[in-house]
Amino acid sequence: MLNFEFKNPTKIIFGKGEIQKLNNEIPKDVRVLILYGGGSIKTNGIYEQVLSALEGLQIEEFGGIPANPEYEVLLEALKVIKEKNINYLLAVGGGSVIDGTKFLAAAAMYEGDPWEILKKPVRIFEGMALPFSTVLTLPATGSEMNSGYVISRRGTGEKLSSGGPGLFPQVSVLDPEVVRSIPKKQIANGIADAYSHVLEQYMTYPTSATLQDRFSESIMQTLQEIAPKMLNEDFDYDVAGNFMWCCTMALNGLISKGVPTDWAVHAMGHELTAQFGIDHARTLAIIAPSHYRFNIESKKEKLAQYAERIWGITEGSEEEKAEKGIQKMETFFHSIGIPTRLSEYTTAYEGCAERIEKTFAERNWMLGEYRKLSPQDVKEIVQMSY
Amino acid sequence: MLNFEFKNPTKIIFGKGEIQKLNNEIPKDVRVLILYGGGSIKTNGIYEQVLSALEGLQIEEFGGIPANPEYEVLLEALKVIKEKNINYLLAVGGGSVIDGTKFLAAAAMYEGDPWEILKKPVRIFEGMALPFSTVLTLPATGSEMNSGYVISRRGTGEKLSSGGPGLFPQVSVLDPEVVRSIPKKQIANGIADAYSHVLEQYMTYPTSATLQDRFSESIMQTLQEIAPKMLNEDFDYDVAGNFMWCCTMALNGLISKGVPTDWAVHAMGHELTAQFGIDHARTLAIIAPSHYRFNIESKKEKLAQYAERIWGITEGSEEEKAEKGIQKMETFFHSIGIPTRLSEYTTAYEGCAERIEKTFAERNWMLGEYRKLSPQDVKEIVQMSY
Repeated sequence: MLNFEFKNPTKIIFGKGEIQKLNNEIPKDVRVLILYGGGSIKTNGIYEQVLSALEGLQIEEFGGIPANPEYEVLLEALKVIKEKNINYLLAVGGGSVIDGTKFLAAAAMYEGDPWEILKKPVRIFEGMALPFSTVLTLPATGSEMNSGYVISRRGTGEKLSSGGPGLFPQVSVLDPEVVRSIPKKQIANGIADAYSHVLEQYMTYPTSATLQDRFSESIMQTLQEIAPKMLNEDFDYDVAGNFMWCCTMALNGLISKGVPTDWAVHAMGHELTAQFGIDHARTLAIIAPSHYRFNIESKKEKLAQYAERIWGITEGSEEEKAEKGIQKMETFFHSIGIPTRLSEYTTAYEGCAERIEKTFAERNWMLGEYRKLSPQDVKEIVQMSY
Repeated sequence: MLNFEFKNPTKIIFGKGEIQKLNNEIPKDVRVLILYGGGSIKTNGIYEQVLSALEGLQIEEFGGIPANPEYEVLLEALKVIKEKNINYLLAVGGGSVIDGTKFLAAAAMYEGDPWEILKKPVRIFEGMALPFSTVLTLPATGSEMNSGYVISRRGTGEKLSSGGPGLFPQVSVLDPEVVRSIPKKQIANGIADAYSHVLEQYMTYPTSATLQDRFSESIMQTLQEIAPKMLNEDFDYDVAGNFMWCCTMALNGLISKGVPTDWAVHAMGHELTAQFGIDHARTLAIIAPSHYRFNIESKKEKLAQYAERIWGITEGSEEEKAEKGIQKMETFFHSIGIPTRLSEYTTAYEGCAERIEKTFAERNWMLGEYRKLSPQDVKEIVQMSY
């Protein structure tokens, strides 16, 4: 097991009707900016619940933060924060709104060009950001209980990530009832996103971290179990609750402790979103199978363990089990309506791999758990996923 | 799934050689009291590592905190805290030392008779206790990452528990190397203790909390897997690391969220320790099988799930699987050298059940996840375990 540090101070308030509890959590003397996305919170009742919970506080609001939160839009919110002397942020949304809020929490206290925070990047320690909380409306990214975020810049086509221990939400309210109004396509994306998060922290090489492995497998098994219920049946509160908690636990830091992590699938996936606007979760399902096939030699022990424990595949050599595990993974993504080939999303895929190779070469990026995956390897992986 | 709140701000520093990192974690301007137990830390090298990490700080020390930390001894430590103006505590030990330290952290700031903190009990919120950290030397209780504690009072034979969100350790250092010098009997106790902690949070009734169930099963499976290696083989760092992390995760709050919890086994077990001085973990192994048999009607779904998932028992009715699960549990305790009948520990057991019945009746205690288990039920359970 590798040495590790773990600290996650976010307070989770989980359950039906719990948004009201924000009233006890946010200090009475702050000026709050409520941040949200496309405005669905104004039709599904969440907005009213938040306003009711904040009664008596000075509040402003800023809506319109898009999926893949855009730097240009966030700069508008930053103006509001400065003009209105905002000193507390409340994200009401999914990963995009929460990620954007984290960037704003840091940017509000940063002297200098805000883009530096992402470009350098600047690690944000405690006291270097405004305090903020979240009301999660779209389970997927885990951003509600971690300190990382990803921001896109339309002008340059960049999608960069940053973070730091000063960017944990103070409180995150997780009410599974919000899942009731989420379109099935977004639920499928959330399942794929959380599942891929686990894969990035699991599909590396064995380090005898038995408990962490079993926790990761627990999340994947639960996601597989709830997926057909979430997508094919009427809303069920308990099923939605498991979905929500799986998404949070998949990326709150716990399962990565003591084990190597990969994240190459995310690095490549981000480029597919930047180039083609494909939903983040879907880009991960496109890249993952090719990534694991390309790296089968170094990942075969964990791939075979995955095949055995998650899918009950006990026959065959380690390599054969590993390949069968990848096939099962593809079948799972297909079962939730997510195609795993780039050509199923766009006809303009030619040249995409070369562009990603060039970008990663410019950034001097070496990827994977060994940091040995070159830009040329990346090109091959992306081509395998066409 | 039940509504829940979860916040655990303790920073875990895990791994070989990490005690030195305390140097960056404890503020430079505090007066530290180092608390420890029987003095084994002075022979196994941990004491030197701690002193080295605290170089430059003002330190005092207090040794001799016994297993089942005694109120009378702790009052002596409280005197030192007050006389020396101590404002930071460092527990270097197992659950007893850490529990004692938590009580002292609260007692140091409590005005009035310190026993009230346990007797009322007084819930300790943030700011109501001295800050403290821990260096874990004996994995078992999980006290290093939770905010509860248990104190015994020799004079009255009482063993009471208390806690509150102000009693999380700031930092806990978990170096699996400490396991190297722990006697096998104590390791067996640690395994039984952690296993029993999971049982108390798992063996209730189903609430569709699929992920929590799987996390609990992950801990029990890992404990079962490492137990023979821990007890029959030479020290192995990775195996010790899994043991240590299992003990922490078994009682850091995570697996109890969204599910009912029982804790009747602990309530009864505490009385066996108070009456006969039997090791805490062993009292749990004595009571658990009888408790589950007595309550098989209300616990049979989870018992059967345990039998199926943990022990692969798929044949028979739900009741039959439940009973087989209990038998497997007993066999597991026996396999780590822990007898499961009170008469294997003492010949003076007659009348013990009646005394516990009387004590619980005086306290008006109703136990179990439904709070329906009467003192008379408790008497029967204890008699079943003779």
